[in-house]
Amino acid sequence: MKAIGLIVEYNPFHNGHLYHLQTSKKHAKADVVVCVMSGYFLQRGEPASYSRQTRTKLALDAGADLVVELPYAYSSQHASLFARGSVSILNDLLIDSFYFGSEYGDIDAFKELDLFMQQHEQTLESHVKKRMNEGASYPRAQSEAFLELTPPTTFPDLSQPNNILGYQYVKSARELSASIKPETIQRTGSGYHSEDLEEKSAIASATAIRRALSNDELEDIRPFVPNETYAALTEHPLVSWDDYYKYLQHELLTTDISILASYYDVQEGLEYRLVNAAKKADSFQSFMNLVKTKRYTWVRIQRTLVHILTKTTKASMADALGANRQPSAVRLLGFSKAGQAYLSKVKKETTLQLYDRPPRQKNAQMRLDEKAAFAYWSYLPTSTRPDFYQREYEKPIVLSDRT
Amino acid sequence: MKAIGLIVEYNPFHNGHLYHLQTSKKHAKADVVVCVMSGYFLQRGEPASYSRQTRTKLALDAGADLVVELPYAYSSQHASLFARGSVSILNDLLIDSFYFGSEYGDIDAFKELDLFMQQHEQTLESHVKKRMNEGASYPRAQSEAFLELTPPTTFPDLSQPNNILGYQYVKSARELSASIKPETIQRTGSGYHSEDLEEKSAIASATAIRRALSNDELEDIRPFVPNETYAALTEHPLVSWDDYYKYLQHELLTTDISILASYYDVQEGLEYRLVNAAKKADSFQSFMNLVKTKRYTWVRIQRTLVHILTKTTKASMADALGANRQPSAVRLLGFSKAGQAYLSKVKKETTLQLYDRPPRQKNAQMRLDEKAAFAYWSYLPTSTRPDFYQREYEKPIVLSDRT
Repeated sequence: MKAIGLIVEYNPFHNGHLYHLQTSKKHAKADVVVCVMSGYFLQRGEPASYSRQTRTKLALDAGADLVVELPYAYSSQHASLFARGSVSILNDLLIDSFYFGSEYGDIDAFKELDLFMQQHEQTLESHVKKRMNEGASYPRAQSEAFLELTPPTTFPDLSQPNNILGYQYVKSARELSASIKPETIQRTGSGYHSEDLEEKSAIASATAIRRALSNDELEDIRPFVPNETYAALTEHPLVSWDDYYKYLQHELLTTDISILASYYDVQEGLEYRLVNAAKKADSFQSFMNLVKTKRYTWVRIQRTLVHILTKTTKASMADALGANRQPSAVRLLGFSKAGQAYLSKVKKETTLQLYDRPPRQKNAQMRLDEKAAFAYWSYLPTSTRPDFYQREYEKPIVLSDRT
Repeated sequence: MKAIGLIVEYNPFHNGHLYHLQTSKKHAKADVVVCVMSGYFLQRGEPASYSRQTRTKLALDAGADLVVELPYAYSSQHASLFARGSVSILNDLLIDSFYFGSEYGDIDAFKELDLFMQQHEQTLESHVKKRMNEGASYPRAQSEAFLELTPPTTFPDLSQPNNILGYQYVKSARELSASIKPETIQRTGSGYHSEDLEEKSAIASATAIRRALSNDELEDIRPFVPNETYAALTEHPLVSWDDYYKYLQHELLTTDISILASYYDVQEGLEYRLVNAAKKADSFQSFMNLVKTKRYTWVRIQRTLVHILTKTTKASMADALGANRQPSAVRLLGFSKAGQAYLSKVKKETTLQLYDRPPRQKNAQMRLDEKAAFAYWSYLPTSTRPDFYQREYEKPIVLSDRT
């Protein structure tokens, strides 16, 4: 039973995801597709626009066989930790290969890039440090430091976000001495950041789809998503940072500054900047515009805000990540019949703890997941929150009715 | 220039308050009436139903000459600390006497009671401890322990909340070796807890008035409040705990248990009880019903919740109260011409720091006041919060247009 892995967020699931899933499965001649999916908060430091349950169901409908949750400790993280957590889980699920989408569809080029980076590690680090001392953000410093090494032009372009993630996936697989093999499928249609819907390709970015949805242009997205997604999107309002700003503001303005500074990712006195902005900003957008600097990218700040919203301290994150920074347990979110069969096989061999309902005694990683669920539910009126907790957090298994 | 002091909350200002103010002024043949008023959160552990500004204005309209703010560190507190803070401020404002309302309108009886309590202090304490070990709440333990001493029947009845406060005022004046003299005016009309509006007396409790307002029975309250209050109440929606439950729930379910335990008034593992209730309760009312026990009264729990909402730790409260548990500074909220004249005289003689706008460098007491303002504003949509901060917190002085 050949299984492949995908690292996904499906926010929401669209035709580009479908293409990636189907092409990867075909390329590998696989029987089973396993997705590791971010739960409540995503890699770019945003709440998921749709519930974990909805996104799991859409993945299963589209052909995934098993969906497991990337723990909170790895999901709203910089690319290297996000990649390490995801690849580690797929590897521990005894999967042969994983497929990532990239603007540059050649896995050997990523491997050569990884080798090149290893060879120039120290030079690169000192270049990065220098750029950051000059005030650059970490991604910009990295990108510029990389170019200073005059890499071969055959390497993937590291100014493209999916190429950065791809590089981190390949690097993680190597660092973990993983038996799982990285593969890449060239992305097609719109670029990751593209905000336009382009009719002709019938593939649009998740960003463009979310934007159309938030503008109530529901009809416009119909060509770009499977019918099941379209149906789900008409039922669920979009969850966004706007729904959480009131909590964030309350949090920033009542928490003692020393406790704010203890939260994960809050560094270099950023807490003062956040508090001052919260006093003035009347919306999430205006808050971000006040906080953003050359030094801190939008995404970097958003991730920090997620950790403030969930009150995740540096200490509790360190506990959750553990010394080897690999997930110790993973939660099953849904499966098809084939996925279930694969699971029974894996269970006998893996050391990874698999669970479908959160246990009463939670380890540090699970405690963060529970807090993330609680923080996420804040967008709901209080009257429906306990129901969310029962339905979305405590009993989340989605069974596919695919035959 | 003879000044008297009143300890008030005016939530909202009604005919009973007017009676108390006017009778006290007349009794003392005073020129100036000074009110020390709770700010954003009140003694019973509730957000003020109306803004500080509105309540200040109504007090001035009704004849008060100077309104100062009881700092947060003393306002949402048990009777003894609430009384100590209030009496200390009035004494430091060089006021001759203060008048409290009581069901029992005889100041000598309160003084005799205070003496009696001093004489039996140790016996009383051991009785209280015994009752609490049996599971009684602190107020019940106190009340029962008191009765065990078989006090003279001429003493004020300590099951009446205003008599308890009155006793604490008299005790505080003695303990502070204050030059200010306590006086009492017998309350008339409805009892403190009464929830009915009684037409005949034209005096109703603030509780009854708030209840009528929250039921949209605005016309019913007209006989019981001055015209100015009536006008203000039609403009302002009632603020209540219901407006804050979503924040409280978010707070309880995302804060690490060790941090919850560090908040002021959180004792004996109460944090676990609060967290469990927050998982289930879909409203403030249902939350309170889940949390309440024989041991913890409704009011005791509400006060704790205020400190959680403002994230006031035991350490920051200790800093704010200082070693001698007396306010070091007091904020001026509004004054009439007579009040202003009195102020200029007092300023030259008092050691108390008087300020109208919060200084940039805030001491521990002022920092809690600022956090209370921020926590209070959470009931507003985020779009109007910065305006609140400018208008209500940073520039609050209300000048009376009384001639």
